Amino acid sequence: MSAAPAELAALQERMAELTDLGRIQSMLFWDQNTMMPPNGAAARADHSSTLEVIAHDKLIDAEIGRLLDALEPWADGEDPDSDDVRLLAAVRRDHEKAARVPTELAAEISHADAMGQQAWQEARAASDFSRFRDALERHIELRHRYVACFEPVEHPYDLLLDDFEPGLTTAELQPLFAQLRDALVDLVSQAAGDGDEARNHGVFSGPFEVGDQRRTVMEVLEAVGYDADGWRLDPAPHPFAQSLGPTDVRITTRYDLHDFGVAHFSALHEFGHGLYEAGIPPELARSPLGHTVSLGIHESQSRLWENVVGRSRPFCGWVLPILREALGPGIPAGVDADALYRAVNSVQRSLIRVDADETTYNLHIILRFELELALIEGTLAVDDLPAAWDEGMHRLLGVDVPDAAQGVLQDVHWGAGLFGYFPTYTLGNLIAAQLWTRVSDDLPEIDAQLSSGELAPLREWLREHIHRHGRKYPPRELLLRATGDTLRPEPFLDYLRAKLLDAGAL
Amino acid sequence: MSAAPAELAALQERMAELTDLGRIQSMLFWDQNTMMPPNGAAARADHSSTLEVIAHDKLIDAEIGRLLDALEPWADGEDPDSDDVRLLAAVRRDHEKAARVPTELAAEISHADAMGQQAWQEARAASDFSRFRDALERHIELRHRYVACFEPVEHPYDLLLDDFEPGLTTAELQPLFAQLRDALVDLVSQAAGDGDEARNHGVFSGPFEVGDQRRTVMEVLEAVGYDADGWRLDPAPHPFAQSLGPTDVRITTRYDLHDFGVAHFSALHEFGHGLYEAGIPPELARSPLGHTVSLGIHESQSRLWENVVGRSRPFCGWVLPILREALGPGIPAGVDADALYRAVNSVQRSLIRVDADETTYNLHIILRFELELALIEGTLAVDDLPAAWDEGMHRLLGVDVPDAAQGVLQDVHWGAGLFGYFPTYTLGNLIAAQLWTRVSDDLPEIDAQLSSGELAPLREWLREHIHRHGRKYPPRELLLRATGDTLRPEPFLDYLRAKLLDAGAL
Repeated sequence: MSAAPAELAALQERMAELTDLGRIQSMLFWDQNTMMPPNGAAARADHSSTLEVIAHDKLIDAEIGRLLDALEPWADGEDPDSDDVRLLAAVRRDHEKAARVPTELAAEISHADAMGQQAWQEARAASDFSRFRDALERHIELRHRYVACFEPVEHPYDLLLDDFEPGLTTAELQPLFAQLRDALVDLVSQAAGDGDEARNHGVFSGPFEVGDQRRTVMEVLEAVGYDADGWRLDPAPHPFAQSLGPTDVRITTRYDLHDFGVAHFSALHEFGHGLYEAGIPPELARSPLGHTVSLGIHESQSRLWENVVGRSRPFCGWVLPILREALGPGIPAGVDADALYRAVNSVQRSLIRVDADETTYNLHIILRFELELALIEGTLAVDDLPAAWDEGMHRLLGVDVPDAAQGVLQDVHWGAGLFGYFPTYTLGNLIAAQLWTRVSDDLPEIDAQLSSGELAPLREWLREHIHRHGRKYPPRELLLRATGDTLRPEPFLDYLRAKLLDAGAL
Repeated sequence: MSAAPAELAALQERMAELTDLGRIQSMLFWDQNTMMPPNGAAARADHSSTLEVIAHDKLIDAEIGRLLDALEPWADGEDPDSDDVRLLAAVRRDHEKAARVPTELAAEISHADAMGQQAWQEARAASDFSRFRDALERHIELRHRYVACFEPVEHPYDLLLDDFEPGLTTAELQPLFAQLRDALVDLVSQAAGDGDEARNHGVFSGPFEVGDQRRTVMEVLEAVGYDADGWRLDPAPHPFAQSLGPTDVRITTRYDLHDFGVAHFSALHEFGHGLYEAGIPPELARSPLGHTVSLGIHESQSRLWENVVGRSRPFCGWVLPILREALGPGIPAGVDADALYRAVNSVQRSLIRVDADETTYNLHIILRFELELALIEGTLAVDDLPAAWDEGMHRLLGVDVPDAAQGVLQDVHWGAGLFGYFPTYTLGNLIAAQLWTRVSDDLPEIDAQLSSGELAPLREWLREHIHRHGRKYPPRELLLRATGDTLRPEPFLDYLRAKLLDAGAL
């Protein structure tokens, strides 16, 4: 190993600055979605856009390319798995991707994304797709212009996927999702109730006051690993997690008076995201290696805590006395651990993705993937999207969509120009199950540990195999290192079938 | 008026970007002091310093000087009172002041300010001045190096003052403060109690729960002009106000279980600051003319609401039923409007500036001014500061200082390298009284309006004469335009004597 050249320090300094700017954007986003008074939105859009332009200019600075080139001969003599060599790869990717897109196009896209969200909001409020169609068409046109900035790839959608899940291709994803879809349609037809059941069998129907729910959520979170000196929990209408650094982690949840399950599982979900961010080691925190490696890997962490842990039989047994103690008589007296476990794993056909259970959820995603792929390919016209949506909901989930607000207009993503994003939700579920297979091998006592709320071994395993690497390895390599496996749906399907059987849903 | 050259738009765009960066710094500061988990501090320091370096580089960019020079011939043909011409003056001032200071010195100062605060915290916790002396000496040395960056002026302290109160000189301030000091020492000797009275005569001693105090504060604030769609109120140990834009105003207060007066008057104080920021017109908001014109003018707004309004006889009469209704029986039954008025205007010799009443407060400031001036002049050695402090407190306020924590180490300002800042607190009091003289002329019904909580006319007056100008006019010119008067102490002394007489303290 030769002494690092001066160019490395220069590059690291530029990257630390860029990382800081990214963290500040997270601060603005967090504030906007938790604290900002409503009338602050216009000024906030200016602040955020100013910061984005500055960061973009710094990222595409030709000096970064020069530093990278100058460092190449040195890197060739280094350990290819060292942080420094991996940093160069990450920076080159970010720099070259950003530099490909002309500033004017980036500005056009950013503007259209903001306008599109507004059009979507109005369209959803009126449940009228026609008010959104122009914005959607514009988004698709801009994605084609974006794709055209790069060397041709096998499928234009590959470049959109790559922004959220680096390296993943349409050719890999299509058969994977088709296999998953067919298996899930089959499972749902066996397991779903008749559609009249109360959510979670009514065990969480309360009503529960927000203050009581918050105290309960905090008690559970502190027991699983929330650290009051480095975390915050706030309410937000669309829960999310943001990290302003590994020791400043902000998570959110939402409260439904008549369903404590919303707050409980949202909080566990965001806790999983937060724990990932808190597990980034200090030496990577102020560099591009301290970023998210991919949305799929990130989502695997939230889904692991929300579903694989939070909806498991042993965890339900451990958490029930805590909930009963904190929430009082709102939980029906007859509910025992088994009843709770069955309730939170019940399968229901539903219209709304964010309300869907673990079994039906991925069908909501696969529909979105199939539709957005067809939109990008041009095989589906924008005007035909609502009908295709309704047909897909019937085909995959057996439900009839009553209106656009509860159908094609329910999610913000397409309004905000996010194409290639939806699939990462399902990737998270698949990866969580793959990780759990390995966790079960490495921690043979895991069920007993979950039963007693002893979660340090699991946290340590996740930190060791996922969190501490940050973005050092590309997502597929990280998965291989952590599990010895490649991305595939079987572990998730096996896990799900076993749970549905155990919980009496099959 | 000729068509504005392209350079004007270019300059405005750069200034909008710089203003955004300043607002983002305010966001980071607000979050740090209200929301941030304790362990977030280290990363926050990085974020803030990255932003500061970027903003500084943008402000000293030679292109700004070129644009200013190119615009000069055009500006000569324009109305000298137009926004655009005034903008050029403000930008030239900011650009040239910043460009004078080498980046290395700016970084040294910024680092020493952070280190100095830490040293001060430790010294105050130990009540040991010796732990702070080196940091203080370093601050003074750095201020001399800072002053040396500029053309020589009459007094080196002028350049420090100018950072907070543009244009004010030591030669003006010294006789003004000497006159004020002598008059106040005289007033205090006549009006101060024997030192054993309860604060506010016990009318606010409660105890009052924080939730009740907050609800009460909000009720008063909403009645005086707080707008829930564009403001926030949060608790903070050292109350402050920040604006992220005229429609995103964040104010804070603090709660003392045994003294509701702390929350009440802090909230009115910060409301005054907030109303100023909310009154900046949209067309100035994203430019240097939307900044604070000076700390003295800003403080005049907070002091006007806290003291001139909040401690007036008519306002006390209006607010008492609200407080009694909201706080319940915690306010002694025998307290009527007259008793409340007398209580909140009682005069007490005290050790701590932030707890001082309206009469003694300025003596605390004048002592700090005299001492920091002597430190900068070199006529007072750092090691002699504690003794000089204790002597001054005895001479001006007749109190004996028991220890450094309650004496020379009580304020953060010197720890943070803020020299020339303290005088602006007293300027605020003087200016508030000068404004009130004019308010009383322009709004002959003001007492009746305060009695009935009809505060819109006062808010409008302040917006018209102060807020809407932002930083368009230098502070002395703004004062002249608003009051027809120059800065002088008599209106404040007249106001204070009249009130003390009316409230039975003289």
